[in-house]
Amino acid sequence: MTRVMICGDLVWAHQECKDMFNGIADVVAMDSPDRAHFLANLKPGGKYEGIVGIYRHNVSADFIGIFDREIIGALAGSVKWIAHNGAGYDQIDVQACKEKGIIVSNTPGAVDDATATTALYLMISAFRQYSLAERNVRTNKWKSGLHSGKAHDLTGKTLAILGLGGIGLRLAELARAFPMRIVYHNRHPAPNAPEWAEYYPTEKLDEMLASADVLSVHVPLRKETEHLVDETMIRKLKKGAIIVNTARGKVIDEEAMIRALQDGHLGAIGLDVYPNEPEVNPRFFDFPNATLLPHMGTETCDSQKKMEIRALTNLKDFLQKGAGTDVVPELKGLL
Amino acid sequence: MTRVMICGDLVWAHQECKDMFNGIADVVAMDSPDRAHFLANLKPGGKYEGIVGIYRHNVSADFIGIFDREIIGALAGSVKWIAHNGAGYDQIDVQACKEKGIIVSNTPGAVDDATATTALYLMISAFRQYSLAERNVRTNKWKSGLHSGKAHDLTGKTLAILGLGGIGLRLAELARAFPMRIVYHNRHPAPNAPEWAEYYPTEKLDEMLASADVLSVHVPLRKETEHLVDETMIRKLKKGAIIVNTARGKVIDEEAMIRALQDGHLGAIGLDVYPNEPEVNPRFFDFPNATLLPHMGTETCDSQKKMEIRALTNLKDFLQKGAGTDVVPELKGLL
Repeated sequence: MTRVMICGDLVWAHQECKDMFNGIADVVAMDSPDRAHFLANLKPGGKYEGIVGIYRHNVSADFIGIFDREIIGALAGSVKWIAHNGAGYDQIDVQACKEKGIIVSNTPGAVDDATATTALYLMISAFRQYSLAERNVRTNKWKSGLHSGKAHDLTGKTLAILGLGGIGLRLAELARAFPMRIVYHNRHPAPNAPEWAEYYPTEKLDEMLASADVLSVHVPLRKETEHLVDETMIRKLKKGAIIVNTARGKVIDEEAMIRALQDGHLGAIGLDVYPNEPEVNPRFFDFPNATLLPHMGTETCDSQKKMEIRALTNLKDFLQKGAGTDVVPELKGLL
Repeated sequence: MTRVMICGDLVWAHQECKDMFNGIADVVAMDSPDRAHFLANLKPGGKYEGIVGIYRHNVSADFIGIFDREIIGALAGSVKWIAHNGAGYDQIDVQACKEKGIIVSNTPGAVDDATATTALYLMISAFRQYSLAERNVRTNKWKSGLHSGKAHDLTGKTLAILGLGGIGLRLAELARAFPMRIVYHNRHPAPNAPEWAEYYPTEKLDEMLASADVLSVHVPLRKETEHLVDETMIRKLKKGAIIVNTARGKVIDEEAMIRALQDGHLGAIGLDVYPNEPEVNPRFFDFPNATLLPHMGTETCDSQKKMEIRALTNLKDFLQKGAGTDVVPELKGLL
């Protein structure tokens, strides 16, 4: 029978996985302790021989590393589909996949709600000084060092969304309830953007940045988005503006952000992601106006289960219909 | 000329205060270091003699204590209006005011936005384990001890609002954006409640509590609301439910809440208020699932200024029109 692989633990959707592939494919679990063992078992006679599709979770990188050119090369031949669990798929070399004719799908919509809620939390915390406030309570300092002059209501402020995809759009909806004014920048206008979301093309990006009280980052990490938010962009924000990042750490030039915090150009930051996770630059700990989370964007059981089922569904649809729904943009041309 | 008193510092609306009372009344600042000095200066020949109205902020209690029966008695005769800055006016003995014919106004609408945003923050933090997550980052523990099984999306969950006044209604609007299901209990249906907010009268209160994923408290502190959320009410919540309190600490039986956290009946709590502020029961610090703020509900410069202007406007309207807008319910009969 056709064989597929679960690469990285399923946590919430064990039963759903059984039901989905029952009679369609044999499911083999990746349990290699290291890359050498993994690569060896892809070969003829190995326990992963002949698998045609993979469910992948980033946790597998702890054992076999990311899906780089070497791994993609070893998968090529039998594997035709990698159903990644996650919105971001920067741990998969999609260029190598393209060359080898392997399609990659992700789980875009499933994480929108949980990640946008995280951005909303970071935004409230940054506007209101709540990270420092919580530390105060736990050190018996009460309101010491908290100044309402530095705290602001969200209502009526301008939220600039860099990258209005599913997560950015979801944040826009949540922030609109206050209401905040919503502006956004994409390379092209988002087709599903509501009319109240004001589009700023590249030639008007500076104008958007100058009007923003908070900039929330929602672009995927690609070569061309690394350090997209650089010194120049940060300095075009108004003095006292807030930056929120729930996308990927490397999208922002961390050193430039730290300089802007140090000299007071930025009023506060809220970060869920960092360039070298799980490392967090300890210089952030010195700023009273920094709210820092350990990449919790999608960490809810509701969303985790939704993501697992969405990734498994892409894999199942590939087997039954020839293709899953959520093919990543770089590989749509292969279909 | 008519005299009014600023009792407790104005911070944001100095100029507005000057403009408002220019030609209408002399404004005298309360600068007594203690109660004895204050009471002495209300007497004939004292510097507060003959004041007819007072702008009051809770910060004045640091010097002269709360407006209890003794102070109200000393004010009676000349003072006819106390324009309190704040939604809660539990620091003023309104029964004594009633007996002496003194009207008290508060600033209800001005704090709705800032306080409801605080409740939303506490709710997200409680659902998502973000207080512990932040402490983790700052002690280099990353995701250690955080379980996505204990973290939940807000979307689709049931928010029970105890006291749908201005703040509760505002929270309902913000939570509706997810959407959450909104249920509420008041003694009578709120006249301005939207149709999607489901009303539970007293005889169905148990049913509401059993259906709630989170209970958010928004009743003012009065004799009859002290320990309104008691052992019985807490145990009627479903296992794993969350309690959020941005109203007053004494509305909840703190010991009962701590017991319910200890035995796992409550899944998490988010508190901005405590029975004996600025003291916080250190037992809360031991719970990983407690988010604790130092009474920050109205601490934004936007809301503080709105509140100052609203309180001053009540005082000015009393002088010019005989009454301000925001008379507290207990004293409406005096008008």
